[in-house]
Amino acid sequence: VRMALLPDLGAEILIPLCAVIGIVFSLAQWFLVSKVKLTPGRGGSSAANNGRNGYRDHLIEEEEGLNDQSVVVKCAEIQSAISEGATSFLFTEYQYVGIFMVIFAALIFLFLGSVQGFSTKSQPCTYDQEKFCKPALATAVFSTASFLLGAITSVVSGFLGMKIATYANARTTLEARKGVGKAFIVAFRSGAVMGFLLAANGLLILYIAINLFKIYYGDDWEGLFEAITGYGLGGSSMALFGRVGGGIYTKAADVGADLVGKVERNIPEDDPRNPAVIADNVGDNVGDIAGMGSDLFGSYAESSCAALVVASISSFGINHDFTAMCYPLLISSVGIIVCLLTTLFATDFFEIKAVDEIEPALKRQLIISTVLMTVGVVIVTWTCLPSSFTIFNFGTQKVVHNWHLALCVCAGLWSGLIIGFVTEYYTSNAYSPVQDVADSCRTGAATNVIFGLALGYKSVIIPIFAIAVSIFISFSLAAMYGIAVAALGMLSTIATGLAIDAYGPISDNAGGIAEMAGMAHDIRERTDALDAAGNTTAAIGKGFAIGSAALVSLALFGAFVSRAGISTVDVLTPKVFIGLIVGAMLPYWFSAMTMKSVGSAALKMVEEVRRQFNTIPGLMEGTAKPDYATCVKISTDASIKEMIPPGALVMLTPLIVGTIFGVETLSGVLAGSLVSGVQIAISASNTGGAWDNAKKYIEAGASEHARSLGPKGSDPHKAAVIGDTIGDPLKDTSGPSLNILIKLMAVESLVFAPFFATHGGLLFK
Amino acid sequence: VRMALLPDLGAEILIPLCAVIGIVFSLAQWFLVSKVKLTPGRGGSSAANNGRNGYRDHLIEEEEGLNDQSVVVKCAEIQSAISEGATSFLFTEYQYVGIFMVIFAALIFLFLGSVQGFSTKSQPCTYDQEKFCKPALATAVFSTASFLLGAITSVVSGFLGMKIATYANARTTLEARKGVGKAFIVAFRSGAVMGFLLAANGLLILYIAINLFKIYYGDDWEGLFEAITGYGLGGSSMALFGRVGGGIYTKAADVGADLVGKVERNIPEDDPRNPAVIADNVGDNVGDIAGMGSDLFGSYAESSCAALVVASISSFGINHDFTAMCYPLLISSVGIIVCLLTTLFATDFFEIKAVDEIEPALKRQLIISTVLMTVGVVIVTWTCLPSSFTIFNFGTQKVVHNWHLALCVCAGLWSGLIIGFVTEYYTSNAYSPVQDVADSCRTGAATNVIFGLALGYKSVIIPIFAIAVSIFISFSLAAMYGIAVAALGMLSTIATGLAIDAYGPISDNAGGIAEMAGMAHDIRERTDALDAAGNTTAAIGKGFAIGSAALVSLALFGAFVSRAGISTVDVLTPKVFIGLIVGAMLPYWFSAMTMKSVGSAALKMVEEVRRQFNTIPGLMEGTAKPDYATCVKISTDASIKEMIPPGALVMLTPLIVGTIFGVETLSGVLAGSLVSGVQIAISASNTGGAWDNAKKYIEAGASEHARSLGPKGSDPHKAAVIGDTIGDPLKDTSGPSLNILIKLMAVESLVFAPFFATHGGLLFK
Repeated sequence: VRMALLPDLGAEILIPLCAVIGIVFSLAQWFLVSKVKLTPGRGGSSAANNGRNGYRDHLIEEEEGLNDQSVVVKCAEIQSAISEGATSFLFTEYQYVGIFMVIFAALIFLFLGSVQGFSTKSQPCTYDQEKFCKPALATAVFSTASFLLGAITSVVSGFLGMKIATYANARTTLEARKGVGKAFIVAFRSGAVMGFLLAANGLLILYIAINLFKIYYGDDWEGLFEAITGYGLGGSSMALFGRVGGGIYTKAADVGADLVGKVERNIPEDDPRNPAVIADNVGDNVGDIAGMGSDLFGSYAESSCAALVVASISSFGINHDFTAMCYPLLISSVGIIVCLLTTLFATDFFEIKAVDEIEPALKRQLIISTVLMTVGVVIVTWTCLPSSFTIFNFGTQKVVHNWHLALCVCAGLWSGLIIGFVTEYYTSNAYSPVQDVADSCRTGAATNVIFGLALGYKSVIIPIFAIAVSIFISFSLAAMYGIAVAALGMLSTIATGLAIDAYGPISDNAGGIAEMAGMAHDIRERTDALDAAGNTTAAIGKGFAIGSAALVSLALFGAFVSRAGISTVDVLTPKVFIGLIVGAMLPYWFSAMTMKSVGSAALKMVEEVRRQFNTIPGLMEGTAKPDYATCVKISTDASIKEMIPPGALVMLTPLIVGTIFGVETLSGVLAGSLVSGVQIAISASNTGGAWDNAKKYIEAGASEHARSLGPKGSDPHKAAVIGDTIGDPLKDTSGPSLNILIKLMAVESLVFAPFFATHGGLLFK
Repeated sequence: VRMALLPDLGAEILIPLCAVIGIVFSLAQWFLVSKVKLTPGRGGSSAANNGRNGYRDHLIEEEEGLNDQSVVVKCAEIQSAISEGATSFLFTEYQYVGIFMVIFAALIFLFLGSVQGFSTKSQPCTYDQEKFCKPALATAVFSTASFLLGAITSVVSGFLGMKIATYANARTTLEARKGVGKAFIVAFRSGAVMGFLLAANGLLILYIAINLFKIYYGDDWEGLFEAITGYGLGGSSMALFGRVGGGIYTKAADVGADLVGKVERNIPEDDPRNPAVIADNVGDNVGDIAGMGSDLFGSYAESSCAALVVASISSFGINHDFTAMCYPLLISSVGIIVCLLTTLFATDFFEIKAVDEIEPALKRQLIISTVLMTVGVVIVTWTCLPSSFTIFNFGTQKVVHNWHLALCVCAGLWSGLIIGFVTEYYTSNAYSPVQDVADSCRTGAATNVIFGLALGYKSVIIPIFAIAVSIFISFSLAAMYGIAVAALGMLSTIATGLAIDAYGPISDNAGGIAEMAGMAHDIRERTDALDAAGNTTAAIGKGFAIGSAALVSLALFGAFVSRAGISTVDVLTPKVFIGLIVGAMLPYWFSAMTMKSVGSAALKMVEEVRRQFNTIPGLMEGTAKPDYATCVKISTDASIKEMIPPGALVMLTPLIVGTIFGVETLSGVLAGSLVSGVQIAISASNTGGAWDNAKKYIEAGASEHARSLGPKGSDPHKAAVIGDTIGDPLKDTSGPSLNILIKLMAVESLVFAPFFATHGGLLFK
């Protein structure tokens, strides 16, 4: 057996170094974005000397009146209104969730502390009974601490993402005056700021926490990495509330604004006369940006924790092989460098010269990052792992070779790419599925909905096979550790994924600002072209989030089962089977809550918007200003109030099931919610994405077929708008929250496993 | 240990006796229905002397011109058109499916025969190696025979149901002239004819088959009851094609007729000017009636087979205790008698005197049958079972007391009642959920759809808990035998369930005939009142079908696992887990196919109906007759063509998975599709039912709130019609087919288990 080539010191230096490089790169991108000035007088001239060679159509040409200072002032005003709205909502949200987090932290401490009756004496280790480990009380203290650390990191991630996005939106609008290529670069760079900051930040904090905890735990790695799992739980708990709260906020505003503005009053989207327009734009930032940021940070934290906790009871941990132990972190570190190179392909090596180059450019990002990362994985695996080692496999130690692990990581990585491409196929209006849905609008909204639902159901097939194959490969090769590193493989290019994901809402906002600032119609068309590609990348981002969530939760589930001391989860026992069927029901319960919340909040919004149109004289004529603040308040109040029940359902289910019914039933619940939730999540977000792009397909009228369905305001277009509105809560509220549901229940079970194993299962005792 | 009180001879007499009583009762009901004459001259006078004391409103009063012979002639004409359409469709369907069945029968013979290389020598038994059993070739022959028998019985059941329904529809219309109470009795009696005929027929044929097979098998009960499982497979295979084909037929016609007729041309439902109207009415009979009949017969046959196959390797079979062995059949026999008494409460003991008494009368049927059946179960259990015995439990024999089994049966019976009531709560417009959905139509179709989907998701919660509790009780008390008898408990009142279920489509058809015959508006209002209650009972019927399907498939799954020789199905193995996640995906794949089929067929229908309206002069004015036959042909062709791929998906999946991946992966697939399919099936049928009744709520305008949303043609009503149209394929095509999907894959796996155990799992060998 050859030992790892990289010495421990190398790992100790490499990980923080990569994280710091990521942060520096992120700041550099931010600096480039900040060159676009939002203060009048110097605006927009810094990069105007690039010429216009190769730019072909009116979307690319520079606008007249580039020095119209009043437009810049107006954009700055709107931007600050959106930014203030988003900041104030997030503060309110964090206050409420903060209380919940403190209570939950207390629960973690009490539950885990009670495992050995709050004794301060060392105890025999769980897996190596001959050694002594730190007491359960220490696990309680450090798990609570890492829980809070994860929650805070998640808050910081979401908040920074939102700040960057609201910083970038108006700048993208202003750059759009110079051409679609310029606007693309600003939007993409801003996305990259968020992507790299989150990835590097998450890695760095986790790394520092491990090193700090090590001071106390010393050689007790079993206890150390058990305590670290709290980090994943904290990250995902915040993400849940962020996704649900933000999702309700954004869709209540969006649905409400559309139903009155577009359908009843026949005014365009983002028209400044619509009272809900600011709330709608705020929503994009708190829902899609902050929510997605927290969500993927959570996945990343959890898959790292799942891998680490399994590694700690495998030969890496038993032999105290630090470099090999850090394999998951090293994969993420190399991922940052790979994404850095990939980003340069979008912003520096190539230039967007036409509208139809945008989507291929974004798609190229996925391919480049996957190919480069494959090389990175091989290098990391070759240098950081011994040639052969053992992995804990439900009570036995399984012999694994280093190239097995490389295969596991690549299985995750490449199945992520497949999921991305399938999602693109089903949600982009360049292909027949979305065009068929658009075509079905001829016979009205009902057929549009039937075809859209069928499309979503169908889009599940290949992703599930991709997930199943990567599960089979990695499970067979390296048990639950294999699954965990496969999840990390899928997430290793998270910085690029987040960059192309954040780019969408930023472009969306930029369009909103252009409309509200009363800029020329051309600007709006340019941002719309950016946004259409953004819809597809958003769906791809959700596909990644769901796929990785499936792998992560399975890895966490495996870690939970190992830690709870059960070696089989037999479907043919009543305890497990009822867990399975009830678990499969939970995503439906959760979706019922979130969809109803969006519906109710949207109804309130509709009433308020209607009230303003009816009672404020001169509003439709544009001579009076609407009362934006009341709409912002309705969205805020609704989302704060409505995020609690679904959040509580997810957070309390594992506690209740584990305490009352025990670990077997809980295992069933986890497996059931995993296999059922993944399907609903994928179908919901693809159905929603397809409806949105079917509508955009009709609006853009880029082909003979599309023009036969349009123009805006035609009957098929109205039917398409109805589909789009139905898809909003599916794709932006219930769908993406479901992957947090399955991850969170798994990581929570893992953290509480010692308690359930000792005191759980009251009913069956 | 006290032995069974009932001697074997008693069981031998009791079972066929009860079946014959059921058939006689059914014929008696048919005789009463046939008293309403469809030939002019004597029509409608036979029961006119009942007086009208207590009848309160205009819906109850007798119509003027009761002796208008031209109306009777017209009704008879329309009835024969519907009947001919339905008969011709079913014949076409049976031809195509017949070919498939013959091929599949050959596959069964070849696969099962190959288990021991077509040897004709006796072999040691699987469970009792000391004894000799009949060769695998015998199992192959008899399984094939019972498969064909099951398929034929299913065809007969569906066909008879359709014949009865098309016999009764026009008679219900004619009786509606005399009052809503009279019409109710005709519709309900006709439903009872179908219910009792199916239940008794299924029982009798199964009983005869067992006795015939016994002549060859003698004391080899293991082989005998293994071969009998083919009966369940045959029944369910036919039911699958019946449900899918009929479902596509009825919904293509319904959606197509509504989209052009109601939405574009603004003519009422069932208007004779609509070219798709005959196809629509034919569809009710081939989809809802024949499909539901085959489906519930399949469930009944499968749960009996599952119970029998487990019993044959338990002490009943080992000790050749025939009475105890026949416990499942005795439960069904008593069920027939109980349902007979229950029916008298609806038709003879009470009289419907007002419209609002209909729904309570139907609900009372459920309660009465459940209470009486509880007594019946106790009696059967006490007289037919030894006080204590053993049940095969995955390799071990579990000791069970007779009252344990009574508890299992009652758990199924009562959880069926709970599911029925919950379904009623979520789909009847007497309660707030449907009223909320109706209210959301104020803001348009989009909110209606969002609220409707949320309602469907929410309606899953309590039924799943009810199913989980009854699984837990029966699984814990008597392993897989407990689950099988719990399923039989839920199905023991099948005759009543089918009666109230068939009543709905008959009333629906009666309304259609009234409209087409140009009868007074009052008649239509009376049949609409019957139909609204029918919508709810249809949803209840689907709830029963799904709940029992869940239990049945679990029982079959258990029997499959036992027969395949595996003792645990561990989620924590890659083989099982990938099966689980892929299995959970199958209902989505299947739904995508069926929904898309309905959508495409409906588009074709829309084009044809539009074409006729545009090209046939005088059609809108009512001076020219539309070309009904072309629409019937479109529905027929579409459903025949489109039922093959989803049917093949379901029929081939177990074969492919079992042969290539082996029994562990197949177990995962079965468990996954079970826990995921149940949820989609329940939510789809309740969402659809709720949308339908939300529309009816607005149309009926029975309350202040309902009137504020109406009248017909208002914007909220249009939004409600869109919801109703979307719900059509959900509640009548994809939803109800899903319970056949989960049952069929399980029973097929059971039949092929010996083959998979011997030759399966090629990939992992």
